[in-house]
Amino acid sequence: MHKILVIHGPNLNLLGSREIDVYGTTTIEEINADLKRLAKAKKTRLKIVQSDHEGEIVELIGKAKGKFDAILINPAAYTHTSVAIRDAISAVDVPAVEVHLSNIYGREEFRHTSLIAPVARGQIAGFGKMSYALGLEAALHVIKKKG
Amino acid sequence: MHKILVIHGPNLNLLGSREIDVYGTTTIEEINADLKRLAKAKKTRLKIVQSDHEGEIVELIGKAKGKFDAILINPAAYTHTSVAIRDAISAVDVPAVEVHLSNIYGREEFRHTSLIAPVARGQIAGFGKMSYALGLEAALHVIKKKG
Amino acid sequence: MHKILVIHGPNLNLLGSREIDVYGTTTIEEINADLKRLAKAKKTRLKIVQSDHEGEIVELIGKAKGKFDAILINPAAYTHTSVAIRDAISAVDVPAVEVHLSNIYGREEFRHTSLIAPVARGQIAGFGKMSYALGLEAALHVIKKKG
Amino acid sequence: MHKILVIHGPNLNLLGSREIDVYGTTTIEEINADLKRLAKAKKTRLKIVQSDHEGEIVELIGKAKGKFDAILINPAAYTHTSVAIRDAISAVDVPAVEVHLSNIYGREEFRHTSLIAPVARGQIAGFGKMSYALGLEAALHVIKKKG
Amino acid sequence: MHKILVIHGPNLNLLGSREIDVYGTTTIEEINADLKRLAKAKKTRLKIVQSDHEGEIVELIGKAKGKFDAILINPAAYTHTSVAIRDAISAVDVPAVEVHLSNIYGREEFRHTSLIAPVARGQIAGFGKMSYALGLEAALHVIKKKG
Amino acid sequence: MHKILVIHGPNLNLLGSREIDVYGTTTIEEINADLKRLAKAKKTRLKIVQSDHEGEIVELIGKAKGKFDAILINPAAYTHTSVAIRDAISAVDVPAVEVHLSNIYGREEFRHTSLIAPVARGQIAGFGKMSYALGLEAALHVIKKKG
Amino acid sequence: MHKILVIHGPNLNLLGSREIDVYGTTTIEEINADLKRLAKAKKTRLKIVQSDHEGEIVELIGKAKGKFDAILINPAAYTHTSVAIRDAISAVDVPAVEVHLSNIYGREEFRHTSLIAPVARGQIAGFGKMSYALGLEAALHVIKKKG
Amino acid sequence: MHKILVIHGPNLNLLGSREIDVYGTTTIEEINADLKRLAKAKKTRLKIVQSDHEGEIVELIGKAKGKFDAILINPAAYTHTSVAIRDAISAVDVPAVEVHLSNIYGREEFRHTSLIAPVARGQIAGFGKMSYALGLEAALHVIKKKG
Amino acid sequence: MHKILVIHGPNLNLLGSREIDVYGTTTIEEINADLKRLAKAKKTRLKIVQSDHEGEIVELIGKAKGKFDAILINPAAYTHTSVAIRDAISAVDVPAVEVHLSNIYGREEFRHTSLIAPVARGQIAGFGKMSYALGLEAALHVIKKKG
Amino acid sequence: MHKILVIHGPNLNLLGSREIDVYGTTTIEEINADLKRLAKAKKTRLKIVQSDHEGEIVELIGKAKGKFDAILINPAAYTHTSVAIRDAISAVDVPAVEVHLSNIYGREEFRHTSLIAPVARGQIAGFGKMSYALGLEAALHVIKKKG
Amino acid sequence: MHKILVIHGPNLNLLGSREIDVYGTTTIEEINADLKRLAKAKKTRLKIVQSDHEGEIVELIGKAKGKFDAILINPAAYTHTSVAIRDAISAVDVPAVEVHLSNIYGREEFRHTSLIAPVARGQIAGFGKMSYALGLEAALHVIKKKG
Amino acid sequence: MHKILVIHGPNLNLLGSREIDVYGTTTIEEINADLKRLAKAKKTRLKIVQSDHEGEIVELIGKAKGKFDAILINPAAYTHTSVAIRDAISAVDVPAVEVHLSNIYGREEFRHTSLIAPVARGQIAGFGKMSYALGLEAALHVIKKKG
Repeated sequence: MHKILVIHGPNLNLLGSREIDVYGTTTIEEINADLKRLAKAKKTRLKIVQSDHEGEIVELIGKAKGKFDAILINPAAYTHTSVAIRDAISAVDVPAVEVHLSNIYGREEFRHTSLIAPVARGQIAGFGKMSYALGLEAALHVIKKKG
Repeated sequence: MHKILVIHGPNLNLLGSREIDVYGTTTIEEINADLKRLAKAKKTRLKIVQSDHEGEIVELIGKAKGKFDAILINPAAYTHTSVAIRDAISAVDVPAVEVHLSNIYGREEFRHTSLIAPVARGQIAGFGKMSYALGLEAALHVIKKKG
Repeated sequence: MHKILVIHGPNLNLLGSREIDVYGTTTIEEINADLKRLAKAKKTRLKIVQSDHEGEIVELIGKAKGKFDAILINPAAYTHTSVAIRDAISAVDVPAVEVHLSNIYGREEFRHTSLIAPVARGQIAGFGKMSYALGLEAALHVIKKKG
Repeated sequence: MHKILVIHGPNLNLLGSREIDVYGTTTIEEINADLKRLAKAKKTRLKIVQSDHEGEIVELIGKAKGKFDAILINPAAYTHTSVAIRDAISAVDVPAVEVHLSNIYGREEFRHTSLIAPVARGQIAGFGKMSYALGLEAALHVIKKKG
Repeated sequence: MHKILVIHGPNLNLLGSREIDVYGTTTIEEINADLKRLAKAKKTRLKIVQSDHEGEIVELIGKAKGKFDAILINPAAYTHTSVAIRDAISAVDVPAVEVHLSNIYGREEFRHTSLIAPVARGQIAGFGKMSYALGLEAALHVIKKKG
Repeated sequence: MHKILVIHGPNLNLLGSREIDVYGTTTIEEINADLKRLAKAKKTRLKIVQSDHEGEIVELIGKAKGKFDAILINPAAYTHTSVAIRDAISAVDVPAVEVHLSNIYGREEFRHTSLIAPVARGQIAGFGKMSYALGLEAALHVIKKKG
Repeated sequence: MHKILVIHGPNLNLLGSREIDVYGTTTIEEINADLKRLAKAKKTRLKIVQSDHEGEIVELIGKAKGKFDAILINPAAYTHTSVAIRDAISAVDVPAVEVHLSNIYGREEFRHTSLIAPVARGQIAGFGKMSYALGLEAALHVIKKKG
Repeated sequence: MHKILVIHGPNLNLLGSREIDVYGTTTIEEINADLKRLAKAKKTRLKIVQSDHEGEIVELIGKAKGKFDAILINPAAYTHTSVAIRDAISAVDVPAVEVHLSNIYGREEFRHTSLIAPVARGQIAGFGKMSYALGLEAALHVIKKKG
Repeated sequence: MHKILVIHGPNLNLLGSREIDVYGTTTIEEINADLKRLAKAKKTRLKIVQSDHEGEIVELIGKAKGKFDAILINPAAYTHTSVAIRDAISAVDVPAVEVHLSNIYGREEFRHTSLIAPVARGQIAGFGKMSYALGLEAALHVIKKKG
Repeated sequence: MHKILVIHGPNLNLLGSREIDVYGTTTIEEINADLKRLAKAKKTRLKIVQSDHEGEIVELIGKAKGKFDAILINPAAYTHTSVAIRDAISAVDVPAVEVHLSNIYGREEFRHTSLIAPVARGQIAGFGKMSYALGLEAALHVIKKKG
Repeated sequence: MHKILVIHGPNLNLLGSREIDVYGTTTIEEINADLKRLAKAKKTRLKIVQSDHEGEIVELIGKAKGKFDAILINPAAYTHTSVAIRDAISAVDVPAVEVHLSNIYGREEFRHTSLIAPVARGQIAGFGKMSYALGLEAALHVIKKKG
Repeated sequence: MHKILVIHGPNLNLLGSREIDVYGTTTIEEINADLKRLAKAKKTRLKIVQSDHEGEIVELIGKAKGKFDAILINPAAYTHTSVAIRDAISAVDVPAVEVHLSNIYGREEFRHTSLIAPVARGQIAGFGKMSYALGLEAALHVIKKKG
C-alpha cells in the first residue's frame, strides 16, 4: 500500500469563503473528502496536513523520508517565496508533485515564478479541486515508475 | 459524445529518439495509442495532429470552434515564442489544456515562461506521457463543468 | 494606377466572433469591402491576403518588389515576435504602413513592442476597421511623396 | 458642428528649421492651414494651441470637458515623460487621438514608450504632416461612433 | 462598538533598544498604551498581538473574519517578503490598514516595495508611533464608510 | 499659531467628475472645507493652492522657508516624474507630508514609485479625502516634535 | 562520401537586391555555386534548401538524421526567435554549423543573441559569402573528428 | 562680441541656503557676478535667467537661434527628466554646454543619467561655482572653433 | 568566559543524508561535536539551536542581547529570503558571523545574494564543516577586538 | 606577401592541461605549428604572441598599423571585459578577425557577450584549433577584398 | 609651486590617426605641449604619463601621495571597466579630475557609465583637447580651495 | 611541507593609509608577518606577492601548478572585473581560497558580485587581517582533505 503526504499551504483552510471569483466555493473539506475517496479506490494511504507555517511545512517534508512514497503539495503563497521548502524537497528522497487550484500564470506577475517547480517532479495548475485529483494520480504514476 | 482536438507541437514526432535523457524513449505513437484507449473508455472522440508549423497550429485552433469541446495542446517550442497560438486560443471559445512531457521549470531559463499558459485553463508538466493522460482527464473535467 | 498589397496577419479571419470586447463585431469581409470601395474611389488596385503563416507573409512581401507600390499590413500577433517579417520589409524596396485594430499600447505589456514599427513608414493603431481606411490613405500619401 | 481641440506639444513651433532630416521642412503654420481646410470641409470647428508647458497642456485638457468633442494631440517630448497629461486625458470624458510627425519607433529607445498611448483612443505616427490630417479623420470617426 | 485587530510584525518587540537612529526610543508598550487610550476615546475594542512568525500572523488574519471590523498591521520585515500575509488579507473580508514607523521609502532599495500595500486599503509610513494613531483613525474611517 | 502650506498637484481640480471609480465623488472644494474646519479646530492657518504646473509647485515650495511650519502635498502625477519638486523639498528646511487619495500601490506599476517619498517625512495613501485630514494631523505632529 | 544539408533561412533568396550596404551584391545563386564547387573538390554531396518557413526548416532538420553527416545553416531572422529550430537541432544527432553573412554583433541589439548558437557546434559570422565556405570546411572538420 | 545665454534650472535660486553639505554656501548672485566679470574680460555679453519652469526653459532655448552664439545651462533637476529641454537643444542650431555644481555621479543613482548630455557639446560637473567659469570658457572655445 | 549562540537554519538537521554531492556526509551532530570541542579549548560556552522556523530564529536573535557575546549563524535557505532575520541581527547589539557549508556563489543564481551578509560582520562559505570552525574563531576574534 | 599578427589572449599558454573537457588536449604549440604551416602554404608571414596582459595586447594592436595587413585574435577572457582592446582595434586601420576555441554561446551567461565582436570584421567560435585555421583563411579573404 | 600628475589612459598615444571623426586630428604631443604651456603660466609642475596598462596606472596613482597636489586623468577605456583605478584614487589622498576628449554620453551605451566619476572631484567631457586645459584649471582650483 | 601562494591584489600595498574607516590601520607588512608566523607554526611555506597588474596575477596563477598546494588570494578590485583571473584559477589544478578584508556585501552594489567566488573553494570576508589567517587555515584544510 502506497503512502502519500498531502500538504496544503497557507490560507487554504479559508477556501470556500476566500476570493470566490478566483478559487470558487469548494472547501478544503471537500477537497480532502475527494482525495480520500480516490486514495481508497487506489489503495493508497494519505496523511493530509494544512499549515500556514513555512517552518512546519519544512519539518513535515524533512520527516517524510522513509515514511511516504510521494508528497502532494499545494505550496500556495510559499510557492513564490520559500527557498526553505524547495531545499526540504531537494533534501529528502521523496518525489513531490506540485498542484495549484488557480491558473497561477493568468494572475499577478509575481505568481508566475515557482521556486518549488524546479525541484518537483511536475506541476498541475488551474483545474480547481480537480488539480488535486490529477496530482494524486500523477504521484501514484511517479511512484510506480520508480518502484 | 465529447470531441477533443489534440495538438502536438514542433519536433514531437521525433520523440523516442530525441534527447532521451530529457524525454525518455516513449514515442508519439505510444502517446497517441494511450490517448485513444483512454478516450474510448471515456466515450470521447479525438482528432490528433502533429505539426511543426506555427501557422498550421493557429489554423487548426481557429477552426476548432463548434467542432471540438476542448483542445489538448503540447505547444512544445512554440510555448515560449508564439503569440499567434496564444491569440488563436483566446479567439475561439474552446477551452484549452496545456501539457508538457518534461518539467519545463527545471530546464533553461527561457523555458520557464509560457505565452500559452495565461490563456489556457490550466497546465500539466513533467510527467512524461502521463502528462497527456492527465491532460485528457482535465479537459473532460473542464467540459463537464461548463456543459 | 497604384497597386497596394494588403496583408492581414494571423487570426484576423476570426474577427467578428473573436474577443468582441477587444475587437468589436466587424468581420474581415467588412474591412475588405470598405478597403475595396475606398481603393476604387482612389483608383487604386488592391491585393488582399490573410495568412496565419509567418513564412507565407515573408514570401508575399519578398515578391512585392516591382509589383506593388506599397504594403498595408496588420501583422497581428507577429507584430511582437517576427524578425523575419521585419527583415522582409527591410529587404524589399516597397514602403509599408502598419495598422492595428486595437490600441496595442492599452493591452498586455508584451504587445507594447512592435518589431515591425522601426522598419515601417508609420503606424496607425486603435481605430477598429477605420485603422485600415486611414492606413490606405497613408499608404497613398507615402506613394505620392515618393513618386 | 463638431469641435476639436488641437494641441501641439513642446518645440513644435520650431518645425521647419528644426532637425530637417527628422522632421522635414513643413512648418506648424502649414500643418494648421491644412487642418483648418480639412476641418472646414468636414464642418468641424478647431481650436489650435501650441505650448511648451506641461502644466498649460494639462489645464487645456482639464477644461475641454463639455466644450470639445475630441482632442487631437501631438504631445512631442511630453509623450515620454508626462504622467500629468496622461492623467488629464483620463480625467476628462473627451476622446483623444495621439499623433506624431516622425516614426517614434525608429528613433532612440526612450522614444519607443508613450505614456499617453494607453489612455488615447489610438495613435498615428510617422507620416509627417499627413499624421495630423489622418488624426483629424480618426477623431471625427471616434466622435461619430460615440454620438 | 467596533473591534480592531492590531498586529505588530517581527522584531517590533525590540523597539526602544533597536536601531535608535531609525526607530527612536519609543517602546512597543508606549505604542500600545497610546492605541488603547485612543481606542477608549473612540469606543473601540482592540486586540493587540506581536509576532515574529509569518505563519502566526497569517492565522490571526485568517481568523479575523466576523470577529473584527478592521485590521491595523505593521508587517515590518514581512512587508517586503510575505505573499502569505498578502493572501490572508485578500482572503478575509476585513479591511486592513498598513502602518510603518519609519519612512520605508527613504531606506534601502528593497524596503521600497510592499507586497501588502496593494491589498491594504491604504498605507501610513514615517511618523513614528504617530503612524499607529493615524492608522487607527484611518481604520475607523474605513469601517464607518463601509458600515 | 502654526502655518501649513497645502499643495494640490495636477488634475486635482477635476476631482468629483474625474474617474469616479478610482477617486470617488468628493470635490476639491469639499477637501478644502474639511481641511479648513480641522485647521480651525487645531488653531492652524492654511494656505491652499492647486496647480497643474510643476514649476509653480517648485516655486511655492522654494518660498515656503520661514513662512510655513510644514507642507502638506498631494503631488498627484508629479509624484512619479518630478525630481524638481523633490529637490525643492530637500532645499527648503520645511518638513513635508505626502498624501494620496487612492492607494497608489494597487494601481499601475509606474505609480508604485514616488520620487517625493524619500525626502518627505512620511506618506499617507488610500483613504480618499481622509488622507488629507490624517496628513494635516501628521504635519502638526511633526511640527510639535520639532518645535 | 560525406553528405551535408545546407539551409538558407528567411529572406536569403532576396540577397543581392536586399540592403546592399549590409549584405553586399552577392546573390544566393553565387553562394550556392561556390558551395557546390568547394563540395566537389572535397568530395562532398550537398542538399541546398532556402525556406522562409520556420516549420519547414524544423521538418528538414528533423528528417536529417541518418541522411546527412552535418548541417550548415544560416538561420537568418530565425536565429533570434526560433526555439523550434533550436530544439530540432538538439533532437537530431547531426552536428550543425551556424553561419551569418553579416557581423550580427555590430548590428541592432536584438541581433546579438542567437537561440541557435548554444546547440550548434560553432558559429561563423561576418565574412559575407566567405562565411559559407568557411562553414563548409568547419562542417567537414567536425565530421572527420567524429568519424 | 559673443553672446551667451546662461540658464539656471529649478531650485538654483535657493543656493546658499540649500543643502549646504552638497552645494556649499555660494549664492546664485555670486555665481552670476563671477560670470559677468569673466564675460567682461572675454568681451562677451551674457543673458542670465533662472527658471523653475521646464516650459519656460524650452521657450528660452527655442528663441536662442540667431540671438546667441552658445548656451551655458545647468539644467538641475530637469537634467534627469526633461526630454523637452533635450529636444529644444537639438532643435536650435546653438551649441550648448552643460554644467553642474555637484558631482552628479557621486550622488543618487537616478542622478547619474543626463538626458541633456547626449545633445550638449560637453559637460562639466563637480567643481562648485568654478563649473560655471569653466563652462563659460568651454562655450567660448566651442564658438571660436565654429566661427 | 565568552558565550556564543550557534544557529543552524532550516533543513540543516537533514545533513549527511541530504544532497551528498553538495553537502557531503557530515552530520549536524558531528559539526556540533567539533564546535563543542573547539569551544572548550577556547574556554567558550555555546548554545546550539537548529530551527526550520524563520520566526523562531528571529526570536532567538531578539533575546540574544546581553546573554551572548556573538552569534554564529548558518541561515541556510533563509539567507536569500529573510528580511526578518536581517532586521533581528540589526536590532540587537550582538555581532553575527555568517557561515555556509557550500560555496553559495558556485550554485544557482538566487543563492548568490545574501540578505544577511550586509548586517553580519563577515561571511565564511564553502569549506564544509570547517566553515563552522573558522566561523567560531572569527566570532571569538570579533569579540576580542570589541572587548 | 601578407603579414598577419596573431594574438593569443590570457591563459591560452595553459592549453592542453587546462579544463580538458572544455578545451581538449591541443596545446598552443600545436595551434601555432598548424598556423605556420598554413601561412607558409598561403605565402603569408605571421607574428604570433601570447599575452596575459591587457595593456600589452593594447600596445601590440596599437603598433600594428602599417606593419600588418590583418590581426587574428583570440581575446579569451578579455573578450568579455576589455573596452581597451576594443578601442585599440577601432583605433588602428587594420582589420581584425576574432576566434574562440570553444563555443562561447554554450557556456556561462557572461561569456555570451563579446566587447570585441562589434569592431571585428567577423567571428569564428567553437571549432577548437580549427577555429584558428578558419580564422586565418578569413583574414586572408578580408585582406584580398580590401587590397 | 603646485605639482600635478597627468595620466593619459590606453590608446591615447594613437590620437590624431585614431577615429578622426570622433577624436579629431589633435595628437597627444599637442595636448601635452598645451598643458605644459598653461602649467608654466600657472607656475605649476606637471608629470605626464601615457599608459595602456591598468596596473601601471594603479601604481602611478598609488605613489602620488605626498608627491602631487592633484591628478588630472583621462582614463579612456578604463573609465568603464576599472574598479582598480577607482580604488587607487580612493586610496590616496590626492584629488583627481577626470577628463574626456569626446562627449562620452553621446556615444555607445556602455560609455555612459564611469566607474571613476564617483571618486573624482569632477568631470569634464566633450571639448577635445580643451577638456585637458579646463581640467588643469579645475585641478588648480581644487588645490587652492583645499590649501 | 605544504606550499601556499599568497596573492594580494591591486592597491593592497597602500593598506594602513588607505581609507582607514573601511580598512583600518593594519599594513600589508603586518598581514604578511602574521601569515608567516602562522605558516611556520603549521610547517607551511609561503610565497607572498602583491601586484597591481591583472596580467601578472594571471601569470602567477598559471605557473602555480605543481609548485603550490593551494592559493590564498585577495583579488581586491579585480574580484569584480577579472574574468582572466577567474579563468586562470579554473585552468590550473590548484585549489584557491578567496579572502577580503572588508565585508564586501555591506559596501557598494558592484562589490556584491565576485567573478572569482564561483571557481574558488570558498570565501572569507569581513574580518580584517583575521580574514587572511582564517583563509590560511581554510587552505590547509582543503589541502589535507585532498591529500
